[in-house]
Amino acid sequence: MAIIEKLANDLVVIVEEIDHLESVAYNLFLRGGVVNDPEERVGASLVLAELIGRGAGELDSRALSDAFDARGISHQEASSLNRYVLRCSLLSDYLSDALELTAKMVKQPRLPQEELASIKSLLIQDIEALKDNPSRRALVELAKLYFPVPFNRPVIGELEGINATSLKDIVALKEQCFLPGGAVLSVAGKVKASRVIKEAGKVFTGWSGEGPGIPDFKGFPKPQAYHIDSNSAQLQIALIYPSAKFGDHDYYAAKVLNGILSGGMFGRLFIEVREKKGLCYSIYSRHGSTAEYGTVTVYAGTTPERAQETLDTIIEVLTGIKGTISDEELERAKANIVSALVIGEESTGARAASNASDWWTSGRVRTLDEIKEKIFNVTIEDINRHLEAYSPLNCSILTLGSRRLELPVDNKGE
Amino acid sequence: MAIIEKLANDLVVIVEEIDHLESVAYNLFLRGGVVNDPEERVGASLVLAELIGRGAGELDSRALSDAFDARGISHQEASSLNRYVLRCSLLSDYLSDALELTAKMVKQPRLPQEELASIKSLLIQDIEALKDNPSRRALVELAKLYFPVPFNRPVIGELEGINATSLKDIVALKEQCFLPGGAVLSVAGKVKASRVIKEAGKVFTGWSGEGPGIPDFKGFPKPQAYHIDSNSAQLQIALIYPSAKFGDHDYYAAKVLNGILSGGMFGRLFIEVREKKGLCYSIYSRHGSTAEYGTVTVYAGTTPERAQETLDTIIEVLTGIKGTISDEELERAKANIVSALVIGEESTGARAASNASDWWTSGRVRTLDEIKEKIFNVTIEDINRHLEAYSPLNCSILTLGSRRLELPVDNKGE
Repeated sequence: MAIIEKLANDLVVIVEEIDHLESVAYNLFLRGGVVNDPEERVGASLVLAELIGRGAGELDSRALSDAFDARGISHQEASSLNRYVLRCSLLSDYLSDALELTAKMVKQPRLPQEELASIKSLLIQDIEALKDNPSRRALVELAKLYFPVPFNRPVIGELEGINATSLKDIVALKEQCFLPGGAVLSVAGKVKASRVIKEAGKVFTGWSGEGPGIPDFKGFPKPQAYHIDSNSAQLQIALIYPSAKFGDHDYYAAKVLNGILSGGMFGRLFIEVREKKGLCYSIYSRHGSTAEYGTVTVYAGTTPERAQETLDTIIEVLTGIKGTISDEELERAKANIVSALVIGEESTGARAASNASDWWTSGRVRTLDEIKEKIFNVTIEDINRHLEAYSPLNCSILTLGSRRLELPVDNKGE
Repeated sequence: MAIIEKLANDLVVIVEEIDHLESVAYNLFLRGGVVNDPEERVGASLVLAELIGRGAGELDSRALSDAFDARGISHQEASSLNRYVLRCSLLSDYLSDALELTAKMVKQPRLPQEELASIKSLLIQDIEALKDNPSRRALVELAKLYFPVPFNRPVIGELEGINATSLKDIVALKEQCFLPGGAVLSVAGKVKASRVIKEAGKVFTGWSGEGPGIPDFKGFPKPQAYHIDSNSAQLQIALIYPSAKFGDHDYYAAKVLNGILSGGMFGRLFIEVREKKGLCYSIYSRHGSTAEYGTVTVYAGTTPERAQETLDTIIEVLTGIKGTISDEELERAKANIVSALVIGEESTGARAASNASDWWTSGRVRTLDEIKEKIFNVTIEDINRHLEAYSPLNCSILTLGSRRLELPVDNKGE
């Protein structure tokens, strides 16, 4: 059971005590992220996230890095689509030190000009590497084409935006985003909540203000078909359609439906496309959601020769699900979701991240028991109702490779 | 502390009781793997590992899959280079059921002829996908060129070998390898050792014989340089050189040295190549070892323009390490290794896998405290001595991409 406290400066602190482990992990979420980058500077937030690791307060780049390493504190600073995320994972004895270092990075980053060029260079390398990774590229391109501005921005930034980013941009972004209002610090592991809250109050003192909100989400387009010509050996297929967002009444129905479609080594997509027909080595569907929107994404990579049959089979599975779910199938999907949930949440890193995400998305933290109960309560009727609201027939389709495919009429975008 | 028992049929059962979790995980290692495939059938073991999931005993393919799924048991059957690995992860209530299903798969797999074509097809898809993944391909090609026969076989199999595999080959392989002698079942989680040993004795009864040994390891070649022309956008650089094998007296020195070279967000390679010069987004070195051999592999992917400087910097770091390690650097590397070890081993899956690996490689199981102590005892002198025995100057270098690089004289293979 998580303990939640709002500090005087509005920073929310969530602590889950897990006594039997030796480690502790925490996530600090700050408002901002790639959606909040200035229009001509998409990727500036990635530069900022790298740059705060290059010195803070009295510590220069090397001293800061050494301070983490000397205590075996694994740390990571990143910018995602809609937030900054600072993660630490460590043996619990060093929690005070770790929090102090994290606070230094967000309150007093040095942001040294001389590190800017090398950071921009390595972020550009990451974008360039996309050319050699068509499966990752297909999903980035699909997001670019399908999501409304600015939610369609690549989470790895844009070449022009990163190139154009100056230190002035970075300083402005830091002033705008690295603020306690709207931020959340989620700690899980071998800790006492009272001590963590006291420590956090101490290291995050002398800090105030509120980070930027999330831009309006303008909704998804009508079904479209996109093709990107590429000389890759395989043909990449990615489908996407709107689904329940976080907090929707049929959110859990969407989760169970996704389990029925694709849950690791089972699920209809896996059975029909991989097991029965051997059409591709890996195939999956994912239900992703935020407070603003939800989507289902289906991905498969296959040879050009097998691509048409693969796409046809995926469409067949997606459109054939309504009204055909059996009780056993439903129960199997639930058992797998709950089992994966419980096992996945046995680590401090997973607990800290889940609690932070819950708060970020809904302003509260669910217990595992609550999630389990909601999953178990989903009925076949719930799923069929959900499928009426969010039909897979509304999917947009992207293919990337050397060949165009025949698409179902509904999804040609004509 | 793990409890170890050898059953009457020589199957070794290792149990680590972890009371405070809800889950249990186990690994069953069986002798065989890709090194043991018949010469013209490289990849047959991968077909076998897929095929045992397609029905066993009275259960056909669907019934077997459903039996796992109905209990939320996540399972995976795989063939690696030198063993078969069957993994399960589940809520502890279902352990008896899971063990029974696993035993059925190894003792009475149905090996249905009608599933063979689709399995071969999907394994071939995985090989074909390598063409679109140059970073993965570089490491597969390096292993092919550098390791002695048959340890140089690709862990994803060979196209010709998989195509040529018949059901007769599969049945013969199963008869040869799926035997209790030399096999190990490692269980970790919320279980009682006495009960697990009793259950294992029951489900693995009526099974006897010993699996095949590992082929002789003929040693590594002199330093070589390999280049593979490819129209990929990036240039892939991979270096490899011999290092301490598992159980060598300087095994732990090799581990600490690797921490100094490359440990997540720290280490000399990371600092020099990524942070200071921004030459590539990701770079790492790994120390891998078995009972037969040890190696260090360094990998970086970068643009053709930055590739020469990247390679030069890597070589500079590798050759500059001897005699230059500071006490603080040593302590930082140790703190990070131990911290990552403790945190990583807090899951049942990790404990089960580590115990199984230890037994497989050395016939005993180390405790975490033993590993920690060995790491803490490593001195700078140990590392310098280790570097004399295993010099990075002996590295072979593979480049994959559109450009050849200037190599250091020692590594031209001339």
